[in-house]
Amino acid sequence: MEAIEKAFLKEGERLDELQRDGRRIIQHPGRFCFGMDAVLLSAFARAYPGEKVLDLCSGTGVIPILMESRYPGAHFTGLELQEESADMARRSVQVNGREEQISILQGDLRNCEEQLKAGAWDVVTVNPPYMKVPAGQHNRNLAMNLARHEIACTLTDVLASAARLLKSKGRFYMVHRPMRLPEIMEQMRVFKIEPKRMQLVSPKLEREPNMVLIEGIRGGAPELRVAPPLIIYHEDGSYTEPVRRIYEGNNGNSQSASM
Amino acid sequence: MEAIEKAFLKEGERLDELQRDGRRIIQHPGRFCFGMDAVLLSAFARAYPGEKVLDLCSGTGVIPILMESRYPGAHFTGLELQEESADMARRSVQVNGREEQISILQGDLRNCEEQLKAGAWDVVTVNPPYMKVPAGQHNRNLAMNLARHEIACTLTDVLASAARLLKSKGRFYMVHRPMRLPEIMEQMRVFKIEPKRMQLVSPKLEREPNMVLIEGIRGGAPELRVAPPLIIYHEDGSYTEPVRRIYEGNNGNSQSASM
Repeated sequence: MEAIEKAFLKEGERLDELQRDGRRIIQHPGRFCFGMDAVLLSAFARAYPGEKVLDLCSGTGVIPILMESRYPGAHFTGLELQEESADMARRSVQVNGREEQISILQGDLRNCEEQLKAGAWDVVTVNPPYMKVPAGQHNRNLAMNLARHEIACTLTDVLASAARLLKSKGRFYMVHRPMRLPEIMEQMRVFKIEPKRMQLVSPKLEREPNMVLIEGIRGGAPELRVAPPLIIYHEDGSYTEPVRRIYEGNNGNSQSASM
Repeated sequence: MEAIEKAFLKEGERLDELQRDGRRIIQHPGRFCFGMDAVLLSAFARAYPGEKVLDLCSGTGVIPILMESRYPGAHFTGLELQEESADMARRSVQVNGREEQISILQGDLRNCEEQLKAGAWDVVTVNPPYMKVPAGQHNRNLAMNLARHEIACTLTDVLASAARLLKSKGRFYMVHRPMRLPEIMEQMRVFKIEPKRMQLVSPKLEREPNMVLIEGIRGGAPELRVAPPLIIYHEDGSYTEPVRRIYEGNNGNSQSASM
């Protein structure tokens, strides 16, 4: 373990357990670290053997790493704007010995025509920055800000890119904030990614949801299926059964973790 | 009671209790009868003393009759396409002695410029037909079909009309099917009625929602608040506490029946 850390970690980084098939991930406490939203998206999304899956705004690569464990047989690519994060993601792929299953690219989704072929992807996943750029001052930590605020990519940028990259009937999976839902649904329809499945996530029963998971189909016919809400914690603070299943996670598509 | 029935009911009609402040409503078993969606909308919507409230697709007037009891001091108008339903609604208003508080108009919301002044309404409520007109054959009962299918008015017709009628910052309240949510949110934004509050309604915990209540503000700024889901029944089939409160319903805006 210490040998691995010496071989793969740079100054200030740490190696975190993903609590899934022994997968690990390199993170830096001073930069953006993944949250439960990424974990829930990796279980809400679906991938089948032979499919090509692209993760936009991939950060340290948590979504492809978790999805590759859950859905073996598909190939995963992560696209990340910040070279430092892409570099951490690449080394995490090596730590997990998944170089053949997962590719990490550094690039800008607003300008990736030469890097990524249009209409070639079965699945696009994304855990984008949630917040509009506020009028006031920013946090001085640019890396953190890029991950949280729509500085380098807006919701429209994400959807425009996904629409270009997805095959016809390709699947789009996103986690976002419920307060942005009207804009999400409007913009998905603008880009012909029809919202087909949605699940709201609440910290506790009878609390307002603070996340929304959404699946769209490129060129799909209108008809949304809304899943029962996913509740994270019991009143005593322990995980609910559906969330425990996501973390313990059986592999494969037979399992219905989130719906 | 029998005298009232003789004075106000026509052949085949019956007088039903609304279980609210002794309010009653005339319905015909062979025509469309109101459901829980109308009751929930009347509690989800808000009206304040002095406001002018317009109910579109008003049917037998159940929403203005229930809302007038819940929110005294506002004035309510119901617009209904079918003269038979409008006639039942007018007689129900008389049965309840609310001619000064509630007006019923027969008219077509697609063509009501002369009947209803633009930009004059504080609140618009609507429990519209939920279903797109199917390619196949229709039920032979036209009255029933007009209430259930988008024959005489589509979602776009409803929103175009509401947008014309509402004051700036006026409030729009609608109940609909969750499967139509993407189109609802897209079209609300097209007509500058920004979705501001939403509540999904499920028959039981862990069941998929089958209704959605939505509030929009004419010219409002984007930011949706999603309420915890409203669950109708306990596992044993009895009403949950929030639904019991809606039926027993204290009056006034101080009460938070649905959020």
